[in-house]
Amino acid sequence: MMSLYSEYFYSNEINQLFSEKETLTQMLRFEGKLALAQAKNGIFPEKSALVIDSFCKNVSLINIDKLKSEIKLGGNAAIPLVKQLTRLVKNIDVEASKYVHLGATSQDVIDTASVLQIQEYLIWLENKLTLLTKILTETTTKHRNTLMIGRTLLQQARPITFGLKTAHWLVRISQIQALLSEAKKRVLVLTLGGAVGSGNQNINKNVQVTLGTFLNLNPPIVTSGIIELATILGMLNGHIAKIAKDVSLLMQTEVGEVFEGVGEGKGGSSTMPHKRNPVTCAAILANANRTPNLVASMLSAMPQEHERSAGLWHSEWEVLTELMMLTAGTVERVIELLEGLEVDKQRMLANLKITKGLIYAENISLALSPKIGKIQAHELIEKACKLAIQQGKHLQEILQEMNIGLIDLDEFFKPENSIGNSLEIVDSILESNEIKL
Amino acid sequence: MMSLYSEYFYSNEINQLFSEKETLTQMLRFEGKLALAQAKNGIFPEKSALVIDSFCKNVSLINIDKLKSEIKLGGNAAIPLVKQLTRLVKNIDVEASKYVHLGATSQDVIDTASVLQIQEYLIWLENKLTLLTKILTETTTKHRNTLMIGRTLLQQARPITFGLKTAHWLVRISQIQALLSEAKKRVLVLTLGGAVGSGNQNINKNVQVTLGTFLNLNPPIVTSGIIELATILGMLNGHIAKIAKDVSLLMQTEVGEVFEGVGEGKGGSSTMPHKRNPVTCAAILANANRTPNLVASMLSAMPQEHERSAGLWHSEWEVLTELMMLTAGTVERVIELLEGLEVDKQRMLANLKITKGLIYAENISLALSPKIGKIQAHELIEKACKLAIQQGKHLQEILQEMNIGLIDLDEFFKPENSIGNSLEIVDSILESNEIKL
Amino acid sequence: MMSLYSEYFYSNEINQLFSEKETLTQMLRFEGKLALAQAKNGIFPEKSALVIDSFCKNVSLINIDKLKSEIKLGGNAAIPLVKQLTRLVKNIDVEASKYVHLGATSQDVIDTASVLQIQEYLIWLENKLTLLTKILTETTTKHRNTLMIGRTLLQQARPITFGLKTAHWLVRISQIQALLSEAKKRVLVLTLGGAVGSGNQNINKNVQVTLGTFLNLNPPIVTSGIIELATILGMLNGHIAKIAKDVSLLMQTEVGEVFEGVGEGKGGSSTMPHKRNPVTCAAILANANRTPNLVASMLSAMPQEHERSAGLWHSEWEVLTELMMLTAGTVERVIELLEGLEVDKQRMLANLKITKGLIYAENISLALSPKIGKIQAHELIEKACKLAIQQGKHLQEILQEMNIGLIDLDEFFKPENSIGNSLEIVDSILESNEIKL
Amino acid sequence: MMSLYSEYFYSNEINQLFSEKETLTQMLRFEGKLALAQAKNGIFPEKSALVIDSFCKNVSLINIDKLKSEIKLGGNAAIPLVKQLTRLVKNIDVEASKYVHLGATSQDVIDTASVLQIQEYLIWLENKLTLLTKILTETTTKHRNTLMIGRTLLQQARPITFGLKTAHWLVRISQIQALLSEAKKRVLVLTLGGAVGSGNQNINKNVQVTLGTFLNLNPPIVTSGIIELATILGMLNGHIAKIAKDVSLLMQTEVGEVFEGVGEGKGGSSTMPHKRNPVTCAAILANANRTPNLVASMLSAMPQEHERSAGLWHSEWEVLTELMMLTAGTVERVIELLEGLEVDKQRMLANLKITKGLIYAENISLALSPKIGKIQAHELIEKACKLAIQQGKHLQEILQEMNIGLIDLDEFFKPENSIGNSLEIVDSILESNEIKL
Repeated sequence: MMSLYSEYFYSNEINQLFSEKETLTQMLRFEGKLALAQAKNGIFPEKSALVIDSFCKNVSLINIDKLKSEIKLGGNAAIPLVKQLTRLVKNIDVEASKYVHLGATSQDVIDTASVLQIQEYLIWLENKLTLLTKILTETTTKHRNTLMIGRTLLQQARPITFGLKTAHWLVRISQIQALLSEAKKRVLVLTLGGAVGSGNQNINKNVQVTLGTFLNLNPPIVTSGIIELATILGMLNGHIAKIAKDVSLLMQTEVGEVFEGVGEGKGGSSTMPHKRNPVTCAAILANANRTPNLVASMLSAMPQEHERSAGLWHSEWEVLTELMMLTAGTVERVIELLEGLEVDKQRMLANLKITKGLIYAENISLALSPKIGKIQAHELIEKACKLAIQQGKHLQEILQEMNIGLIDLDEFFKPENSIGNSLEIVDSILESNEIKL
Repeated sequence: MMSLYSEYFYSNEINQLFSEKETLTQMLRFEGKLALAQAKNGIFPEKSALVIDSFCKNVSLINIDKLKSEIKLGGNAAIPLVKQLTRLVKNIDVEASKYVHLGATSQDVIDTASVLQIQEYLIWLENKLTLLTKILTETTTKHRNTLMIGRTLLQQARPITFGLKTAHWLVRISQIQALLSEAKKRVLVLTLGGAVGSGNQNINKNVQVTLGTFLNLNPPIVTSGIIELATILGMLNGHIAKIAKDVSLLMQTEVGEVFEGVGEGKGGSSTMPHKRNPVTCAAILANANRTPNLVASMLSAMPQEHERSAGLWHSEWEVLTELMMLTAGTVERVIELLEGLEVDKQRMLANLKITKGLIYAENISLALSPKIGKIQAHELIEKACKLAIQQGKHLQEILQEMNIGLIDLDEFFKPENSIGNSLEIVDSILESNEIKL
Repeated sequence: MMSLYSEYFYSNEINQLFSEKETLTQMLRFEGKLALAQAKNGIFPEKSALVIDSFCKNVSLINIDKLKSEIKLGGNAAIPLVKQLTRLVKNIDVEASKYVHLGATSQDVIDTASVLQIQEYLIWLENKLTLLTKILTETTTKHRNTLMIGRTLLQQARPITFGLKTAHWLVRISQIQALLSEAKKRVLVLTLGGAVGSGNQNINKNVQVTLGTFLNLNPPIVTSGIIELATILGMLNGHIAKIAKDVSLLMQTEVGEVFEGVGEGKGGSSTMPHKRNPVTCAAILANANRTPNLVASMLSAMPQEHERSAGLWHSEWEVLTELMMLTAGTVERVIELLEGLEVDKQRMLANLKITKGLIYAENISLALSPKIGKIQAHELIEKACKLAIQQGKHLQEILQEMNIGLIDLDEFFKPENSIGNSLEIVDSILESNEIKL
Repeated sequence: MMSLYSEYFYSNEINQLFSEKETLTQMLRFEGKLALAQAKNGIFPEKSALVIDSFCKNVSLINIDKLKSEIKLGGNAAIPLVKQLTRLVKNIDVEASKYVHLGATSQDVIDTASVLQIQEYLIWLENKLTLLTKILTETTTKHRNTLMIGRTLLQQARPITFGLKTAHWLVRISQIQALLSEAKKRVLVLTLGGAVGSGNQNINKNVQVTLGTFLNLNPPIVTSGIIELATILGMLNGHIAKIAKDVSLLMQTEVGEVFEGVGEGKGGSSTMPHKRNPVTCAAILANANRTPNLVASMLSAMPQEHERSAGLWHSEWEVLTELMMLTAGTVERVIELLEGLEVDKQRMLANLKITKGLIYAENISLALSPKIGKIQAHELIEKACKLAIQQGKHLQEILQEMNIGLIDLDEFFKPENSIGNSLEIVDSILESNEIKL
């Protein structure tokens, strides 16, 4: 993370959560609670554990600069942290200092501290996703009937409603909520296995259970919860980027149907007053160009050697953090985007007209089929369309000239008659989401 | 896929499933059943549907070369296929030909045909994973007590059992089985929405439900099931590659603890008779260097424009197929690997001795602590280790010379006394897996 | 590669080049020429070499199915190929059979055969890129003065010419040509080092030089030419995808400035006659969603173990081939795209007017500055723009009403007066490209 | 970047170079020099330019917190920076304030500032690579004759010298130096094109040339130099990771041939005194698991829309920076690694013996061939090897028992007689590198 863009690609709230101070705080929390858990299970006197835990509550006792410069020696932050902690305790209580980090290994404290940060992160994220689906539900309800053109391969195809589009946005975010909720039990897991993951006399099952309870984490199991989380965040970024992609295209000068809200000076350009730059979309799309490859790094870190890897494990630390931080920025941005979203219904209606009726050709062909046969109907309408394009006329005008014998020809050129089951789909998504809420 | 390596990186059984013929077979199946579903719901006469369906049962009626050369014109295989199908039907029954592909869009048939192939693929995969976990369960049971050194950062650390290692392999595969099983309901979903996904008079809810029943697929919902599947396969490859990584390291000439089985001429070299090349591991590790980036391509294909994308959707077709095919190869290879796995228990025991007792230093230090204090114990053992290394002696010999006053010093140098809770962990994994089975 | 899309994402010409038959042909060519080179340097009698080489000229002697099924045993195609070749030779000439593949290792034949295929590929590619830059040069020349709006962040910004846009496309492709040309000497390199790359009595420097001459390859050096090639192809795909991205956006129904040519039935939809689907662009954009991740796989295959890797080397084979094949498809598609490109100059002019003069605001502000001060000018024009938007009037009309005192106000609203140095840039690019040609 | 690991995965020297303060300093430098270049070319009075430039020399005048919080509004750091700069100038000199950032666009300042940072980065990097190749040259010279086993597929194959291994490391780094040197002219390029890259009356060719001279950058051309740089850094990471991979494998307890140097407490474990953790290798390998995917993000950012992208451009900023920063850490670490590298020649010799002569079987077979025929020789030696393995005897002993009639059998079992052309290759690499230096 370049701090310059810490409020654009990222979320300030979440940036704090992954600061070096906060990481060390969680590592100390692990060490303190480990001592208490061991004492509670009779591994050593509670008195000593209380001394250790008291030092673990104050990260400001740690000389962070010194710690960072010593990481190179042992290859992780746990070794110099435990060294400093032991020294602090020893100055006060030599006996207690013997029990610091007893039987644990670097991976225990590093991975658990990471999970403790994820625990807080997920609370934040789930709250934000609840807000996001709430906004999307409101938008969908509001625009259930807002007519617009549906587009495939960047071409106008047939009418839909804007609510159908946002309902599809909504349902995808809802699915991510479900996946996250399900994955949590595999993510929020204590790591505590000692040197080679087999435990030892000081790291037994009872200690594991007690420490799990203290930290509100599931007892140690081998799990790929962390990778699963990464893939879910990857998908979440994809879904949100789809929203940003659509909005940025709909904001184009030549389309002009939907806009990012205008904050004070937002997206504008004093020298080019007509511009409405999709600056919030740009942040989301930028992040979405990075997150798939962060997931790839997490996946390629999986074939780790033996009982602990030399390098692949180490690469997970920053990659996962970066993925979580970028996702937080993406989520925060899309909420801002949708909260301020401006919809120009008139422009939507106007854009429905720019093909001069051609978007309704298929419907008319279908309506004619029972009367004159599908092939004949198709050929007739095809001919009419060609004429319309050649003469620059509206298809309806051509068809009237051709006198094709459809009553209420007008009705075929009303977008509200061409939206298929859009409203039913919207209602069904809203309903199933309501039940869920 | 270069066909040259179709039996090394891939599985011959699965290669067939994704052949062009099989893909077109499933596309035709969709078209035939769509007609039947529409007829059943009164969209058009059943007679016509039966004619259409009859042509959809025989892929050999399709001129595949012509079809392939026409893909360039419309950008997908559905357009030329529907064209050929319509012509075939029309030659026999002009009326019926009007109802071919009625109201459907290219994406409906392409995505559904893909899901129908996935349906077969998942049956195959689940069977193979059942077999794989069975083999891993047997291996774990057999080697529950097989002593070996645990290694971290490629260094000998402390003893474990080989069963602990394989139990960890097992539990990860089991989790993938659970994820796959859960994801299926989001993967095996019918796509049927017409031009812009809104349905139309010929593609209504009843038709969707009927067709879903015919094809044994869930009715259409917006879902990222395909992406979810891709991420799960990505993780599966990572887990299996971890097995291959471990085996390939354990097969090193200098380690020699575990080997790929020797088929006739397998892995050997007539000119270098001592070599036992990890050729099966190599295939798995090669695949695992590709699959993370295929998942990345699937994730980066997510921000698709509007109601259908121009390019991102198209990129999914081959990427997902390649991911499934490579995964099949990986699964097939690891089963071969584990079925033939040779374990050299003697070499494992021998390797436990090469540090001349140093791997037990920590235990002895812990045992001394209550007697002389942790710091003193630590310093004394540290000194003993240094002496052992300098003099090239066994640590036990040094400690005897130092007369440190531990009774039964012998016991501390037995690996079976240093495996922590290895056996309990093994048993607990086997037990939970048994319940699951 | 799914063969179904072999003419859409790929190039039929190039698909042949990488067929299993062609790969084996090049491997045999290596073996035959190796024998000749060794004989020429006195390693064994020329008579024997001639016999070997004669068998190496006919791939149809090889039982490919058998070979493929045996790859699993040794982990590559070289081992079973050499086995079959040796048997063939031995049936005729026992003495000669002793010299087959003498002193060489699997990697020698596999990597060299791959380079021999690359050699042919690069001839094809360079010809195609010459054609591509020729077309781009013509397009640029033709549209040097074709006025259109320049767009930033998907918003109309200021006028440019279409020739400026295509000149930028051109210059990027030219740079790739230069990089390729430079890289060739590091790519077209013989691999011939024996078991551990150190050579041996049968693989000495003279043999290397002779074989290099026979195959028109540079003598063996350690090189990352293959990876370098992969990165250049990755960039080429990116540059071409930029063209496809622009064209697909310019083809939008609401923009309609540039179109893929209409072949018979191409891109059209009989049911939606107004659609001009960017189907060629879609293929290019689909490929561009895959190629970056193939490059990533090549890069992640670099940290190979010791003198030959167990897996990473193996993963290069198909990844590099797939990258070359997709690139070939991309290049072929973009040539088709540009050869048939349709430019609607009228629509470009029309689109320059849709902001009602606002795109010229900055220019007028600058022109006013010397008269009334920059700040004042800026504020005045800003006010005028707001009025124009509010009242739905043209900016020129507002400014006339405001009587701002600029002579020849008309001139400021002509796009040709707002294109900066577009023409100079176009000319300079054309000139430097001409010199190069 | 998590700052906790800023000295492990990164380089402290380089971290400073990419701080937010330094980025803004370079952006201001661009603005100041732009004003001077415009004044020099008569666009506005030099007096004004001097005022502007004076404010551009002091980044501490900028309220960075305010700036960062405003990035969200415009989507990049240039807009709020120019705003603050203009205000600062205006407070002193209203006239001068009119000329701040005159005719330039955000991309001009952001991309140029980035290139100015890259300029400093490349000086640092080239110095470090010079040092790195110097160390590798020394290591290669020193170990030209140091015998060790060569390994393929993680199996002992045939003897080489350690110098041959390090020569191969060396030649790869040298090639990166050459690529970097060549790429610089495409990387160190001024971006200055105004709103849509076409220039304007205030951004003409003369201004571009003057500003290029002031900043020591090439005049603006369309270039993919930035992407090319990214790919070269990607390859550099791969090459260095190959070194780390080899060292980490050679450090294995069971191999023990080469070690990271022992700094105070480095890599060691007080509780496991026998461990020599490859902690420096781990950092390099961790970075190499990330850099390929950063390159992928750079490549996937290439298909940018129209004259400036909405998102893809934005994603380049941090990705390229992160790639440069990780590469710096990797380079710094490998220098530390190689400077302290310990080579255990005795262990290398011992490891040459663990197959009990089998690694020489091929040589003996070749030597026997002229006497008894290749096939016969091969079969005889194969039989001898089998006996040796079965009886646990040394191959030489078996051959003596078999009385195969080779004089000086001893000579065949000396590794120095089995290293092929290792020494010649080493000498040739050293020589060509010397010429280059």
